[in-house]
Amino acid sequence: MRKSSKKRTRLTRKLGLPPGSLVHIGEIKTEKPSITLIEFDAHGVTETRFDSLEASRLHQPTRAKMWLNVYGLHDPAVMAEIGRRFKLHPLVQEDILNTHQRPKSDEYADYLYIVARCFDFDTESSTLNSDQVSIVLGRNFVLTFQEQATGAFEAIRERLRAEHGAMRSHGTDYLAYALLDTLVDRYFVMLDNLGDMTEDLEDLALSNPNPALLAEINRVKHEALMLRRAVWPLREVLNTLSRADSSFFTADTRLYLRDIYDHTVHVLESLESVRDSLADLLDIYLSSVSNRLNTEVRILTVLTTLFMPATLIAGIFGMNFRVMPLLEEQDGFVIAMGMMAVAATLMAAAFWRRNWLKTR
Amino acid sequence: MRKSSKKRTRLTRKLGLPPGSLVHIGEIKTEKPSITLIEFDAHGVTETRFDSLEASRLHQPTRAKMWLNVYGLHDPAVMAEIGRRFKLHPLVQEDILNTHQRPKSDEYADYLYIVARCFDFDTESSTLNSDQVSIVLGRNFVLTFQEQATGAFEAIRERLRAEHGAMRSHGTDYLAYALLDTLVDRYFVMLDNLGDMTEDLEDLALSNPNPALLAEINRVKHEALMLRRAVWPLREVLNTLSRADSSFFTADTRLYLRDIYDHTVHVLESLESVRDSLADLLDIYLSSVSNRLNTEVRILTVLTTLFMPATLIAGIFGMNFRVMPLLEEQDGFVIAMGMMAVAATLMAAAFWRRNWLKTR
Amino acid sequence: MRKSSKKRTRLTRKLGLPPGSLVHIGEIKTEKPSITLIEFDAHGVTETRFDSLEASRLHQPTRAKMWLNVYGLHDPAVMAEIGRRFKLHPLVQEDILNTHQRPKSDEYADYLYIVARCFDFDTESSTLNSDQVSIVLGRNFVLTFQEQATGAFEAIRERLRAEHGAMRSHGTDYLAYALLDTLVDRYFVMLDNLGDMTEDLEDLALSNPNPALLAEINRVKHEALMLRRAVWPLREVLNTLSRADSSFFTADTRLYLRDIYDHTVHVLESLESVRDSLADLLDIYLSSVSNRLNTEVRILTVLTTLFMPATLIAGIFGMNFRVMPLLEEQDGFVIAMGMMAVAATLMAAAFWRRNWLKTR
Amino acid sequence: MRKSSKKRTRLTRKLGLPPGSLVHIGEIKTEKPSITLIEFDAHGVTETRFDSLEASRLHQPTRAKMWLNVYGLHDPAVMAEIGRRFKLHPLVQEDILNTHQRPKSDEYADYLYIVARCFDFDTESSTLNSDQVSIVLGRNFVLTFQEQATGAFEAIRERLRAEHGAMRSHGTDYLAYALLDTLVDRYFVMLDNLGDMTEDLEDLALSNPNPALLAEINRVKHEALMLRRAVWPLREVLNTLSRADSSFFTADTRLYLRDIYDHTVHVLESLESVRDSLADLLDIYLSSVSNRLNTEVRILTVLTTLFMPATLIAGIFGMNFRVMPLLEEQDGFVIAMGMMAVAATLMAAAFWRRNWLKTR
Amino acid sequence: MRKSSKKRTRLTRKLGLPPGSLVHIGEIKTEKPSITLIEFDAHGVTETRFDSLEASRLHQPTRAKMWLNVYGLHDPAVMAEIGRRFKLHPLVQEDILNTHQRPKSDEYADYLYIVARCFDFDTESSTLNSDQVSIVLGRNFVLTFQEQATGAFEAIRERLRAEHGAMRSHGTDYLAYALLDTLVDRYFVMLDNLGDMTEDLEDLALSNPNPALLAEINRVKHEALMLRRAVWPLREVLNTLSRADSSFFTADTRLYLRDIYDHTVHVLESLESVRDSLADLLDIYLSSVSNRLNTEVRILTVLTTLFMPATLIAGIFGMNFRVMPLLEEQDGFVIAMGMMAVAATLMAAAFWRRNWLKTR
Repeated sequence: MRKSSKKRTRLTRKLGLPPGSLVHIGEIKTEKPSITLIEFDAHGVTETRFDSLEASRLHQPTRAKMWLNVYGLHDPAVMAEIGRRFKLHPLVQEDILNTHQRPKSDEYADYLYIVARCFDFDTESSTLNSDQVSIVLGRNFVLTFQEQATGAFEAIRERLRAEHGAMRSHGTDYLAYALLDTLVDRYFVMLDNLGDMTEDLEDLALSNPNPALLAEINRVKHEALMLRRAVWPLREVLNTLSRADSSFFTADTRLYLRDIYDHTVHVLESLESVRDSLADLLDIYLSSVSNRLNTEVRILTVLTTLFMPATLIAGIFGMNFRVMPLLEEQDGFVIAMGMMAVAATLMAAAFWRRNWLKTR
Repeated sequence: MRKSSKKRTRLTRKLGLPPGSLVHIGEIKTEKPSITLIEFDAHGVTETRFDSLEASRLHQPTRAKMWLNVYGLHDPAVMAEIGRRFKLHPLVQEDILNTHQRPKSDEYADYLYIVARCFDFDTESSTLNSDQVSIVLGRNFVLTFQEQATGAFEAIRERLRAEHGAMRSHGTDYLAYALLDTLVDRYFVMLDNLGDMTEDLEDLALSNPNPALLAEINRVKHEALMLRRAVWPLREVLNTLSRADSSFFTADTRLYLRDIYDHTVHVLESLESVRDSLADLLDIYLSSVSNRLNTEVRILTVLTTLFMPATLIAGIFGMNFRVMPLLEEQDGFVIAMGMMAVAATLMAAAFWRRNWLKTR
Repeated sequence: MRKSSKKRTRLTRKLGLPPGSLVHIGEIKTEKPSITLIEFDAHGVTETRFDSLEASRLHQPTRAKMWLNVYGLHDPAVMAEIGRRFKLHPLVQEDILNTHQRPKSDEYADYLYIVARCFDFDTESSTLNSDQVSIVLGRNFVLTFQEQATGAFEAIRERLRAEHGAMRSHGTDYLAYALLDTLVDRYFVMLDNLGDMTEDLEDLALSNPNPALLAEINRVKHEALMLRRAVWPLREVLNTLSRADSSFFTADTRLYLRDIYDHTVHVLESLESVRDSLADLLDIYLSSVSNRLNTEVRILTVLTTLFMPATLIAGIFGMNFRVMPLLEEQDGFVIAMGMMAVAATLMAAAFWRRNWLKTR
Repeated sequence: MRKSSKKRTRLTRKLGLPPGSLVHIGEIKTEKPSITLIEFDAHGVTETRFDSLEASRLHQPTRAKMWLNVYGLHDPAVMAEIGRRFKLHPLVQEDILNTHQRPKSDEYADYLYIVARCFDFDTESSTLNSDQVSIVLGRNFVLTFQEQATGAFEAIRERLRAEHGAMRSHGTDYLAYALLDTLVDRYFVMLDNLGDMTEDLEDLALSNPNPALLAEINRVKHEALMLRRAVWPLREVLNTLSRADSSFFTADTRLYLRDIYDHTVHVLESLESVRDSLADLLDIYLSSVSNRLNTEVRILTVLTTLFMPATLIAGIFGMNFRVMPLLEEQDGFVIAMGMMAVAATLMAAAFWRRNWLKTR
Repeated sequence: MRKSSKKRTRLTRKLGLPPGSLVHIGEIKTEKPSITLIEFDAHGVTETRFDSLEASRLHQPTRAKMWLNVYGLHDPAVMAEIGRRFKLHPLVQEDILNTHQRPKSDEYADYLYIVARCFDFDTESSTLNSDQVSIVLGRNFVLTFQEQATGAFEAIRERLRAEHGAMRSHGTDYLAYALLDTLVDRYFVMLDNLGDMTEDLEDLALSNPNPALLAEINRVKHEALMLRRAVWPLREVLNTLSRADSSFFTADTRLYLRDIYDHTVHVLESLESVRDSLADLLDIYLSSVSNRLNTEVRILTVLTTLFMPATLIAGIFGMNFRVMPLLEEQDGFVIAMGMMAVAATLMAAAFWRRNWLKTR
């Protein structure tokens, strides 16, 4: 039986605890938290990887702007330390650890907290996985938190490292924008995957309908919904950020946010089309099953019908009339058998021409 | 015949009475009202259980903040007494007793009246039960009213009693928040249960479709709707409370309310997915019934077809030709019977290979 | 053929007439208009029944507040007289007589005009009937107009007459509220009736599907829609009245209006659930019809199959082999017949066990 | 093949022309434009019919208010002349000639331009036809333009001519209101017709389902949509006109506009119910077709079953046992035939009782 | 397997690139960018075609207003040059090259950027193709960018060239309006094509349902959605432009924009009707398949039934009664055969009359 184990986890861990307790809620996907600090300014980039909390405490800032990235959230001590350093509100800390948040943005005095979701497509099992990405944008820092290293942000790191990259000269708000842009671009890939899966399911529903397909259809429906739930509120977040007169994004970066806002609208519209197709799938599957059964009954009826003339001929030559043709002749029996064969063959040919002998 | 007896009760008791009359409307679930007073401040907690109205009248307050909890609403005298003590508006008193209110919040000069619903899952009958929870939040008191002791608030009591619990130092608005948070956390459990029931019903619809299932599907649909009706308006209430500049919640607690607001949105979105699956269930059930019938007709047709060749062979050897093979031979009959058996076996094998002999 | 005769009436009478002409549009349900005047103040109640327009003209007011109730609207003269006495706008008069108005409230300088609908359940024919109730609320008077005496307001009259009733001391706005409250309470009864009818139809659709049911389903759908159309705009009216700063309702009464507003929201939500079930009904009916047919075909196929082995045995013993068992024996025929009986019985037993001999 | 020729016309004529070109777009329904001028004031009415543009140019106004009505729009010269006389904006002129406008109202400095649609029911072909009605309301004139004389406004002309009609003393805004009221009243008639057609189609779908019905269902759906598209924007227009502080309608007439606004809401709500029924029609039709087929298969199976016992009896008496009952008796054959007849009759009776011999 | 290759392209090219990079995203449809400059004022028109970027750099403006049209976007150098000349924001340049934008309008200080889509119907493959049209409206210039030369704007060029065309005397805002008007007029043609395709599919679904049709239905659904996605946001754009107090459109031209706004609303409404029909198509197709199968089973059952009486007659005359009619007579056999023929013919006639022998 399929059980939605994630939600279960949420509850067994959370129920009865006071709000604001720092407990990681979600699946543990990484063995050890991995903390990387990228400091940058127009002149260059310094990257530091921390192995322990102590190491991080000793670190002295080297450049004006920094990006702290954390993979792995199951160690509350790390969160507590970072929270203390950057003065994050307890609710923000709790939301970072509880990886089942809806995308949203909360503005605090010193930083902007943005929750989004990063999607990954597991080509082996053909499933969509999603991971919560928490982005904290301060005046001169960006913090990012994720359960797992998906490599989604690797291209951005490359651009920061690049010799002549314009990226370094922009503020941290532009970095935050670049991160969001990357996430939204991934939604297009997911959209493609969902579209492909839907088409495959449709082909299967027509060619080989079996109950397992029903579970598959449900799964893909669920994943489409999952994607929608990630994009829909993010669209609202981007709309707000791009319009509101916030101190965290410059007017220039807000223009770029408007651009990804347009992309999320695009994703949502395309998603509707995928969801429409998925809604039709159940109907197609159900009638495909029904038609398959009917086709089989048709074949059986064809077989029955093929025997009818032969049986009648046998019956006719079994009649007890005194005067009857063929009975006394040497080849009578062979002729009768021939008549049977001819009748059956003619009928079979007629059915064959109409494609009634195929199971489709 | 299933009758919605609750609504009936509402009407037979209420029709013809002047508005504002204190009559308990709803099922009586508790024998005797149970009244508990928890007084608390940063230093400690005092708990008192009242056996009679008189006892409660004599009670002198011992600490700055208090939480009065009432289980059992069928005795209007209790309500009237509390109403008089806390100066509750007649409409509030009426709404507390009439346990079929929609979640809402009404702000009065001296207190805020919040109606929410507490859900319980009866694992035995696999049904969701819901109970109205009335919360009256004053400057230094919280009143809670419920039909039945569900144990939902036990964890909060524990946290109040805890030696170093931060709970006691917060105001009563934080207590009200904690109560609402508990209720919303329960909605997630209900969501899980609804999801499981839906999946079970789907399995049953495919494996053993019978009309009783239809009533089950309707019941679960109804319960999903019930949950939705409890959460939808609560979401609005939380939105208003967390945004409005009310004097009953501090800015800090409002941040926490925003958090449960997010949770209710999450519940509603997940609920939509459950409702989608439930909507598909009827189609699955109906075509499953139809397919089962068709499968049975297929088996019957298979049986008919299996007899055809044998009958034909018997007919052939019943023909009256003078010259016919086998008829005069000693083993003729056995050979004929063998031909029949072979023909039937071959056909049966072919059908077997195609799975046409299974009822699925 | 079912024709919606009401709308027809509307048109044949109205088309071509100048707007504002006082013509009664709707079914005539009462023989003679019945006009009752209830005058009341904190000290007592005076009731007067007018037999003629002349009698009413001579009447002198006796108490500060009054409620004039009119049953029967087909005599325009009555309307004209009342309209002149209370200075009602021609459009208001026209709307009172045209009993197919949507619920609404129109505020004029001296009075507030409210249209609502009163529902009645005819238990004999299991149909919902609705009647337009026009309420005109002035500073110290309430006028109510209805096609037919439904007894809906009898309880309110009783409360006015009651010795110690608080009702008399309230203003006429409270009376108007009480009238609306009564109407909304009736909607709950209608909701129950619709729910019961839906369940009955579902049972019938499964046990005895016949085309007449289709008309029934349509009828109940139509009645659910009728109720919805009565409640939906009334909800808006109540929302407006309870919020707006009108001079016709005191702040206190507005609180009570808010309460019935909540009830109408409740009715509408429950109605959605009924409408969902009704929407499923067509699917259930249609597949029930289809399954019934398939079940019958299954029985027929079972019968056909039962004859197959007997026919084969007869065929076998009809073969003309020289050497055949049993043929020459005394009991051969009886044995053959026994074989047939055994084969048919075994098959019938197998089918019986699988419930394939039942028409369901 | 059904083609939507109207839209085609629109395009072939319009594509490539500069906007604002005066080209009539729509079907030509009248041979020669017919122009009638009704001048009126409280004292009387003067009617003039113009045969040529020249005649109209020579006309001198005789009374304070006037109503110019034009039937037939295919002669751009007429439009150009009127446009010049009343100083109509080129876009207004273009919209009057292009009869596929959505209902709307455009306010210009000197006049208000209102587009609505007039519906006609062709009882012969049971189709709804609609025609664009353009109303230009100036300070003391009303212009109306229509493709075709439908007689819709005849009653209004009668009221203007009537000796004691109050109509003449009202301003031209009241005349415009009366015209709109007439159009809206016609929508109710169309609603009735749509409802009747839907019921007829439902009866046909059950009694005689054939593919032609599918086209019919589509046609009626299309007409319901056509009506909806005419009413929906008109409702918005009326809402705006009745609320806005326009100089073209007096406060008093705006009250009347509010009244027709309510009527359009009523039409739209009733239309929803018709559209719901139409949406169900496809399901009813499709399963009716399927059930009809199944019923026919049932009859055929009944026939097959009826022959089974007779065939078995013949087989039994064809067996070659030495000792068999009846064979040697004089009446043996007749008895056997009787047995066959009795068996078939009994079965037929059983089937008859269950109504399995009817094609329904 | 059908793959949505366009989106793929988008991603493989874009992923990992910094935002604002000038990369053409979309299909390359034109070999070489074709740049045409039309300069015009009230006195005349000058047209110049540039073969190279250099040629364009040398060009000196000859008239007050100009329209620069670019077909083919795959050469970023062209875009960069134009961008520099007209000082276009990098995001605008990026959006022009990325041809998967949603229709929108962005107002900058010196120009207004409008994205719309141009539709083309490929009559050969019966498919709708769409191309992004970017319009940049400055104070005295209009820039248009398109992937491909569709000829959509040819008529406008003609009107500019025309001797007495009023077009030249209008400002560039009127030109922008004319371009948008042309695009919207094309939507009507697409609507017609979609309507025709839907009707054809419906006919096919009834006459010859095969799985390929399912893909066709999906394709047309997808194209209807594509059209909707092009029109829906454009409607919003036009609404904003026609209302907002923008400096790029004169009040007069805004009136004309209002007109095309009305047209887009019209397109969207008609599109809904097409989409409704498309939604029904799946149901019609699925039940058509099912009915076809049932019809075939009916024919087979008819055939079976036709053999029954003949087989019975043969069985009867095969019985071994000593005394039987006809057996000893000379013509007995012929009479028996005649009886068989008559019985079969009568039955066949009965079935024929009921149309049960047609495959439909």
